Amino acid sequence: MKIKKRCSAIIEALPYIQTLAGKTVVIKYGGSAQLDNELRKKLCSDLVMMQTVGIKTVLIHGGGPEISSFMKRLGKTAEFIEGLRITDEETAEITEMVLVGKINKTLVSEINLSGGRAVGLSGRDGNLVRAERMKHITQKGKEIDLGLVGEPNRIDTAILKDLLEHKYLPVVAPTGMAADGRMLNINGDTVAAHISGAIAAEKLIFLTDQKGVLRDVKEPDSIISAIRIDELEELKRIGIISGGMIPKLDAARSAIEADVSAVHIIDGRVPHSLILELFTSAGIGTMITRH
Amino acid sequence: MKIKKRCSAIIEALPYIQTLAGKTVVIKYGGSAQLDNELRKKLCSDLVMMQTVGIKTVLIHGGGPEISSFMKRLGKTAEFIEGLRITDEETAEITEMVLVGKINKTLVSEINLSGGRAVGLSGRDGNLVRAERMKHITQKGKEIDLGLVGEPNRIDTAILKDLLEHKYLPVVAPTGMAADGRMLNINGDTVAAHISGAIAAEKLIFLTDQKGVLRDVKEPDSIISAIRIDELEELKRIGIISGGMIPKLDAARSAIEADVSAVHIIDGRVPHSLILELFTSAGIGTMITRH
Amino acid sequence: MKIKKRCSAIIEALPYIQTLAGKTVVIKYGGSAQLDNELRKKLCSDLVMMQTVGIKTVLIHGGGPEISSFMKRLGKTAEFIEGLRITDEETAEITEMVLVGKINKTLVSEINLSGGRAVGLSGRDGNLVRAERMKHITQKGKEIDLGLVGEPNRIDTAILKDLLEHKYLPVVAPTGMAADGRMLNINGDTVAAHISGAIAAEKLIFLTDQKGVLRDVKEPDSIISAIRIDELEELKRIGIISGGMIPKLDAARSAIEADVSAVHIIDGRVPHSLILELFTSAGIGTMITRH
Amino acid sequence: MKIKKRCSAIIEALPYIQTLAGKTVVIKYGGSAQLDNELRKKLCSDLVMMQTVGIKTVLIHGGGPEISSFMKRLGKTAEFIEGLRITDEETAEITEMVLVGKINKTLVSEINLSGGRAVGLSGRDGNLVRAERMKHITQKGKEIDLGLVGEPNRIDTAILKDLLEHKYLPVVAPTGMAADGRMLNINGDTVAAHISGAIAAEKLIFLTDQKGVLRDVKEPDSIISAIRIDELEELKRIGIISGGMIPKLDAARSAIEADVSAVHIIDGRVPHSLILELFTSAGIGTMITRH
Amino acid sequence: MKIKKRCSAIIEALPYIQTLAGKTVVIKYGGSAQLDNELRKKLCSDLVMMQTVGIKTVLIHGGGPEISSFMKRLGKTAEFIEGLRITDEETAEITEMVLVGKINKTLVSEINLSGGRAVGLSGRDGNLVRAERMKHITQKGKEIDLGLVGEPNRIDTAILKDLLEHKYLPVVAPTGMAADGRMLNINGDTVAAHISGAIAAEKLIFLTDQKGVLRDVKEPDSIISAIRIDELEELKRIGIISGGMIPKLDAARSAIEADVSAVHIIDGRVPHSLILELFTSAGIGTMITRH
Amino acid sequence: MKIKKRCSAIIEALPYIQTLAGKTVVIKYGGSAQLDNELRKKLCSDLVMMQTVGIKTVLIHGGGPEISSFMKRLGKTAEFIEGLRITDEETAEITEMVLVGKINKTLVSEINLSGGRAVGLSGRDGNLVRAERMKHITQKGKEIDLGLVGEPNRIDTAILKDLLEHKYLPVVAPTGMAADGRMLNINGDTVAAHISGAIAAEKLIFLTDQKGVLRDVKEPDSIISAIRIDELEELKRIGIISGGMIPKLDAARSAIEADVSAVHIIDGRVPHSLILELFTSAGIGTMITRH
Repeated sequence: MKIKKRCSAIIEALPYIQTLAGKTVVIKYGGSAQLDNELRKKLCSDLVMMQTVGIKTVLIHGGGPEISSFMKRLGKTAEFIEGLRITDEETAEITEMVLVGKINKTLVSEINLSGGRAVGLSGRDGNLVRAERMKHITQKGKEIDLGLVGEPNRIDTAILKDLLEHKYLPVVAPTGMAADGRMLNINGDTVAAHISGAIAAEKLIFLTDQKGVLRDVKEPDSIISAIRIDELEELKRIGIISGGMIPKLDAARSAIEADVSAVHIIDGRVPHSLILELFTSAGIGTMITRH
Repeated sequence: MKIKKRCSAIIEALPYIQTLAGKTVVIKYGGSAQLDNELRKKLCSDLVMMQTVGIKTVLIHGGGPEISSFMKRLGKTAEFIEGLRITDEETAEITEMVLVGKINKTLVSEINLSGGRAVGLSGRDGNLVRAERMKHITQKGKEIDLGLVGEPNRIDTAILKDLLEHKYLPVVAPTGMAADGRMLNINGDTVAAHISGAIAAEKLIFLTDQKGVLRDVKEPDSIISAIRIDELEELKRIGIISGGMIPKLDAARSAIEADVSAVHIIDGRVPHSLILELFTSAGIGTMITRH
Repeated sequence: MKIKKRCSAIIEALPYIQTLAGKTVVIKYGGSAQLDNELRKKLCSDLVMMQTVGIKTVLIHGGGPEISSFMKRLGKTAEFIEGLRITDEETAEITEMVLVGKINKTLVSEINLSGGRAVGLSGRDGNLVRAERMKHITQKGKEIDLGLVGEPNRIDTAILKDLLEHKYLPVVAPTGMAADGRMLNINGDTVAAHISGAIAAEKLIFLTDQKGVLRDVKEPDSIISAIRIDELEELKRIGIISGGMIPKLDAARSAIEADVSAVHIIDGRVPHSLILELFTSAGIGTMITRH
Repeated sequence: MKIKKRCSAIIEALPYIQTLAGKTVVIKYGGSAQLDNELRKKLCSDLVMMQTVGIKTVLIHGGGPEISSFMKRLGKTAEFIEGLRITDEETAEITEMVLVGKINKTLVSEINLSGGRAVGLSGRDGNLVRAERMKHITQKGKEIDLGLVGEPNRIDTAILKDLLEHKYLPVVAPTGMAADGRMLNINGDTVAAHISGAIAAEKLIFLTDQKGVLRDVKEPDSIISAIRIDELEELKRIGIISGGMIPKLDAARSAIEADVSAVHIIDGRVPHSLILELFTSAGIGTMITRH
Repeated sequence: MKIKKRCSAIIEALPYIQTLAGKTVVIKYGGSAQLDNELRKKLCSDLVMMQTVGIKTVLIHGGGPEISSFMKRLGKTAEFIEGLRITDEETAEITEMVLVGKINKTLVSEINLSGGRAVGLSGRDGNLVRAERMKHITQKGKEIDLGLVGEPNRIDTAILKDLLEHKYLPVVAPTGMAADGRMLNINGDTVAAHISGAIAAEKLIFLTDQKGVLRDVKEPDSIISAIRIDELEELKRIGIISGGMIPKLDAARSAIEADVSAVHIIDGRVPHSLILELFTSAGIGTMITRH
Repeated sequence: MKIKKRCSAIIEALPYIQTLAGKTVVIKYGGSAQLDNELRKKLCSDLVMMQTVGIKTVLIHGGGPEISSFMKRLGKTAEFIEGLRITDEETAEITEMVLVGKINKTLVSEINLSGGRAVGLSGRDGNLVRAERMKHITQKGKEIDLGLVGEPNRIDTAILKDLLEHKYLPVVAPTGMAADGRMLNINGDTVAAHISGAIAAEKLIFLTDQKGVLRDVKEPDSIISAIRIDELEELKRIGIISGGMIPKLDAARSAIEADVSAVHIIDGRVPHSLILELFTSAGIGTMITRH
């Protein structure tokens, strides 16, 4: 009987909910999960569910593809060096407009329609992310200027804590504020790692376009379900962690080192993957921990 | 795929949880639900789930069969007049011991094992239920003395509110305290109605041995799903409400009149019937409301 | 001696500060004041000063010229009917991006650099401004569709109050959220009037490009320093209030009717005009009150 | 003049009250004090007085004789090995019923009639006393199973602190909850020592059937008024502490070692002995301290 | 046995303490009680006892004789018209110095030595008593100027409430502050009546040099133990209330009319008369009530 | 334009206000500043300004000249040994009356008239200053008894903190309470140093009759603007610090050693010198710091 199973699904979620109630979980969200309307709606429901059962939830979003497409509308081509966007004044302006004025508001609105109480923040609101310009050394050892690109040097968590205490769900656009007040564009995974460390989150979850860390990229079932941070270097060396996974796992490591208990890399393309990961025994994706 | 359905069960519970979070729900529990070990364990999980998602939950239990069976062990026969137990000094003593020292503690313990934080109360703890002796007029119009049987005349909700505020789950044995300090035995449904009214509960739920109010007792599918309190008299008159249902519906009416929004009569023999009723669209049993 | 005068300026501000400490003041800000870098910096200092001496301060900004200029960059022409912007999907998208992702962040950043703690909000954050589409009747009596243009139908002040209680300075972009979650563009003066009424502000101050309401538009010194709301109709009839002043004074009236004590129309082109108006006996511009 | 003396009695209590106000005092109560109606009433007044003048008061009661007499009514004989009750399933059931459902409620009721606000607790309520089965080694060195008899392994003081903060007077029955949820019977003195240590009580007072520790058991006036814990072993060795006093003084020692400032052994047969001990210079019985 | 009686004195005080705990009691104190060192020490103990058992206690003192004697030391003669002191500048200066700088501090110090936490206040501290000059009409109908003598026109109870909340015992000197900031001398009974009304005291107690209101002044045992305020006029008319009792009973009436439950006139010459009145069944002096 | 300068004076005060908001500043006040009516009024405005912008402000006053002149009125000559007043019983009585009953109330009243909320305290109120008799060793090495003169041995800051928390401005007369409850006269600078240390003040400011510490007493412009405490001994040795400055700088040193960040010696004869020092870049007088 259907109804019966529904009940047991709910009741089996109980111990998971009990474990996380009152704790803080940071979600970093990007890629297809962000672009697909249906997936996005489901994610927003999941976030509201988390908040409702008492998990302090912070969402950090990305924005790559939409920034590039908007630049195209303005007749401007995005330039990248080794995967990093060169950010001149105009690019910076557009980046902030798209991240803060478009993507962030779409998410806030979707969460609020699902019955949540989201408030959007950029790194400049409440001095959340103070940042400094990042120097990039190319693989050939040349130092190049990426423009208005930064990395966090101080997280002021007061605004997050105040909003969470009043049961709001903060939605954060990954930007920072330089000493002169200017916006700096920051990698979303980096912001997520810094913020989750600074607010002593229990978990940081990356919603990605992959099933997790795969032992063999061609075998989608070869997921490594658990990695200790002291194994990361070896996994990089033997090429299991490569490409876009490298910065993500570096972010994971720095979060763990800042006392986040666990970082999860899960598949954002699976509907309700957050619920699956957090409230069922399914245990999808890869979990990174200290020990 | 199984996992998928599990997720949707959880996520479909969201609007129900959102509606009840922060509200108070009183559960009156008796009959087979109480006697069957498996059902009791499931009920306790359900209560912990309710408390965990932010519903202020109060459990009121009964005790009829166990009191009688304990009296038998002491070589004493339970005496009833028109369904009401004659309660002499010794019966009163045994009643309180069984209700408060046995049934109540079993429930408290079960809830705590499920990860909840239950605290047992009798009507004498914290002056919760002040009561006076009840006079009974038989159907033949004769007034008879039922002994140490009472009805509430003042509910002091402070201890319930203080416990709920600190996230405890109060488990209440249906006794009261007379002006001279003596214990009075009180009908559990009556206590539930008075308490739910006094603490302004959103819902009062009776877990019973029936599917609800049936249009035709022989047809288990003839449940009347909704009754307005102004229909009760007519339903009694035409015999649809009869026997043990009469006092239960009188209690329901008095709760509604004391501003409880809805009273539910549901089938305690169905596992997880509370979850079904509260967190799914299943909508089992009979709901009594004002309008 | 210079120093001496400085002291007396500070000490003469005392009674004004004492009167406003703990009260809420809403500032609506637009026009040249917003476009001129120097003026904007001074305004931001003024706001931080207000917040520092204990005035709960809310800033609401406009965005007209910058929206139009950004649309031009995208090769799109702004269309107006009787001064109201026709807002199609693309215009709406750009409007929100400019207001929320650019102007709002510039102000937040400037205030934070001056030592304040600003947090930017749009009408969709925390459900601040729920709105519905506005119907416009032209002067010729024709009803026309302005597209994604709205007017507030519910202000949820919780997020403002929570931020003010924690000593943040909310900076609000004038947008709203429709029942379907979409952004609606709203006139800034209207948003300011609704918000100041909803949070029971002591004062609403319009920083404009005029010295106030002039008896004779050609005589800059013919400022009317005080107007009662029951005088407004007559002033409109005889042409003293005309053009852009009409909607501003309609907003003022609705704020007063929602129990704001006083609305001020002052000259945003004068540096530190807020300090002048609030903390000195200078009393610039026009004040609108009930009596 | 009588009235005059009354006043001075009250006013002489002042420094004692001032010293204890805001502190926590745990009373262990058993023996004749518990069985005699008049003494019990006076004790309850004393407890209410303590609570009224601001002393956080916790009562822990025993139950030996009443358990045995109830077992007799059920035709069951109490079995003891070296003074310890062998507790089979049925004995455990009866023990909890008598302690929690009878003695505890009588005390709660008496206190509430005296104007206090008592709430009864067992070791299973709010997880107050988690316990494990106790192994008993007989004097002959044989390990025997006492059945459902335990000793505390974790005290969760939250429920006591929450009740004391709201000015309730907790009345505790000496039972515990095993890891499987079952009730374990625990020696009342042991529970009192563990609880007073866990809540950092200022004093633990044992109301007993003796005047205190006597230098010569046949000389009721040979009370030793003060003992340091490092003297206990020697006093046992020379036989001054013997019989039932041994476990009581072991409990006293463990309380002192858990930072209770003083343990008192006083004569519960003297009316108002608590008032005498706490609020007058009379200083009855034996006091055990660290130094 | 002495000790026994001491206990019962304490325990008999319990219901009285329970009734007054958390309530506010204002004591007006003057005459011999104030001048006699032994009586004053006892009074201070009584006040500390009251505060300790949870009664919010405010003391208002007088100063007549000491002011006059200090004036004599300065070679100045006190002038009175119909019992009212003519207060010129110098008299006012001396009055405040004696009341605030001498009597008040002596009382504060005595209370603190008894273990209390007293804080002295004059009518000018925290704007406690705003006052205006009093006009006096002589019995011959002539209006005369008494100088710097006033009557309260606004009591700002904030400072009293803040101190009582933090468990201080405010000791008030009967002065007021005129609109120009100058000290005005005010009758102590009048200040006591205004303050007890303004802070909604439960009781106002006058400690006097008389046993209470006597039916026959020559018969010290002819105390009228209870008077309703509607009886006062008749008692004045027939001469039972006369002389110095008239202003005291006028003050009593105005306190009752401001919702103080009861005003007591008791004999301050009896040691510990406050304890007698409040904590025993002795019930000394005269009580004035509304009904 | 005048108005413009006024604005900039206010806005230039902003960073100074921001730095001190929420911090505690203790002002010691004496000499001409206290005797001149106009200066006193301005000082009171300055204090209210400080309190209004969120600085927790405590005022400690002196009283030397007024005590002596009042003694003269009583025909009593003030006796001094090496600048220290010999304080017999009568002198002590008068000292307290003048300090507490006259000077203190004048200041309280002036501050309250300026819109502040001052409350006067002596060292005996709320046990603020517990003190012991001071022994004085003359320059000739003879120990002499100064009578009722003391030095603080315990500061109970509770009353100050409670008043500051409720936004009162405490005005403290420099007296103390001996173990027997008697008033002891204490040097005002000493009281200021002890109190500022005990409440962890940010700054202690001495308002004096000098421009600060002068390199050459005859050159009023030779102010030393900053002194480290390790330079004090050398400055004394070479005679730059001499006379009345010695005890003031000793007090400064002990405040710094008790973790006050900075002590300022400024010219109380300059109107609004507090505003100048605290809220402008003028930086008058001498500042003493640790490093």
